[in-house]
Amino acid sequence: MADASNPHRPVPSHLSNLVIDTLISHVSVRDYKEDPLPEGILEALTTAAQSASTSSNLQMCSIVVVTDADKKEQISQLCDGQRHVAQAPLFLVFCPDLYRLEQVCRRQNLPFADRYMEMFIQATVDAALCAQNVAVAAESLGLGICMIGSIRNHIKDVAKLLGLPPRTYPLVGMTIGYPAKKNPTKPRLPREVILHQETYDTSGLEEGLDAYDEIMAETGIYRGRHVESEAAANRKERRLYGWCEHTARRMSKPHPKRRDMFDSLKQLGWEYD
Amino acid sequence: MADASNPHRPVPSHLSNLVIDTLISHVSVRDYKEDPLPEGILEALTTAAQSASTSSNLQMCSIVVVTDADKKEQISQLCDGQRHVAQAPLFLVFCPDLYRLEQVCRRQNLPFADRYMEMFIQATVDAALCAQNVAVAAESLGLGICMIGSIRNHIKDVAKLLGLPPRTYPLVGMTIGYPAKKNPTKPRLPREVILHQETYDTSGLEEGLDAYDEIMAETGIYRGRHVESEAAANRKERRLYGWCEHTARRMSKPHPKRRDMFDSLKQLGWEYD
Repeated sequence: MADASNPHRPVPSHLSNLVIDTLISHVSVRDYKEDPLPEGILEALTTAAQSASTSSNLQMCSIVVVTDADKKEQISQLCDGQRHVAQAPLFLVFCPDLYRLEQVCRRQNLPFADRYMEMFIQATVDAALCAQNVAVAAESLGLGICMIGSIRNHIKDVAKLLGLPPRTYPLVGMTIGYPAKKNPTKPRLPREVILHQETYDTSGLEEGLDAYDEIMAETGIYRGRHVESEAAANRKERRLYGWCEHTARRMSKPHPKRRDMFDSLKQLGWEYD
Repeated sequence: MADASNPHRPVPSHLSNLVIDTLISHVSVRDYKEDPLPEGILEALTTAAQSASTSSNLQMCSIVVVTDADKKEQISQLCDGQRHVAQAPLFLVFCPDLYRLEQVCRRQNLPFADRYMEMFIQATVDAALCAQNVAVAAESLGLGICMIGSIRNHIKDVAKLLGLPPRTYPLVGMTIGYPAKKNPTKPRLPREVILHQETYDTSGLEEGLDAYDEIMAETGIYRGRHVESEAAANRKERRLYGWCEHTARRMSKPHPKRRDMFDSLKQLGWEYD
């Protein structure tokens, strides 16, 4: 699992340890063995999830466990037909949850008044922090994971299938199982591009993007996976197909399945302003 | 650091390992030693951050490093005067970032069209996942951390102070340093309350809340920290002051400093629908 000498994920050797080695060895796994998971895995992963920081100890995350084959198949269909959703022995759905807080208010006979954009953010962050801890815990046990954002492609259908109450939503899914195949770790943007000293600084951006483009083009990762883009087709000039081109083409049109997220979440009971 | 026998954070012993022990030992640290951090710490923490999952490899997180004493003091003032923000040797600000993607589109001569609610969520989750990995990496090195949500109390002022460009925002701050004082781990909601098998299930909610109320009241954590609430003052009946009462009182009024988050983020260049 640990790969202290990973050139894509540099860590000074005197700061290397087993925990950091686990973090930097993360890759998304999309092909799983049928092997059952160890007994007690849900207890371990849930405790890891609950150990993450949470805004004001409000604990605004619920986790739905899906192991039923039919249900995994249905969810897989709702997630762009991603096979690993049906294939992985365990599928978790992390849900920001204000419904529980509303119930707590009702129970205490107090109004539920704090429910605007800030609480959407708090609940979403709570759920994301839980998900990351689960990912780390699972990987430390030799399991592979893949976060599934396409759980939001048909967000209302997934909410219905999982019986989610109002003021919750499926933020991210996670496939978990023993890896049948594991890709090498993916290079990330040069550190200087994302790290800013004292104030946000774009002076290294262009150089960083050039360097990353070369690195990513060389991995061959985009071979046969070019994003279709009308705007790109209409351009005269030829471009290196690296991270910048791949990313810009993705961003050149609204997400085909998630353009209406604002309204969909409203229909799921979320309030903004 | 590791506490395999922590009764608040149960993990089956055959699944216990150093990584999981680190995760379940998390406590927020609000009092730091002056000791300098190890050389290379930023490299290690940034690599940990960048190793987290990221939607479509879009890497929508930027991190602003604050070590300047004056600046930490200013930020501390903007964060409800929380002393540990000024005191900790290192303060990081995790920023969801669509600005960079906009620049990438411009660079590739393509329109930046995918920028609605879904992208707000993706960027926010990316930043949260990075933050959690940094927390885990720091704690594995014997450092303490505290996530600072009050960085959003005066979100536009913080954005200005950090020179953040449009389509970014300060999601969460993080104090990092060697702990001068460390509290015991905080009990969390019973597992059954947050974990749902196949579908969301509220059947164990009341019992779980009762149990948690007792546990939290017993910790004495709310002593001298009762939340003022007009609605609670107007109620006739007496209530146990546990997690439910503390939480319901918090939720009984909109957040005093973050009621306008929706509009503030709009002014920072975020688009929703």
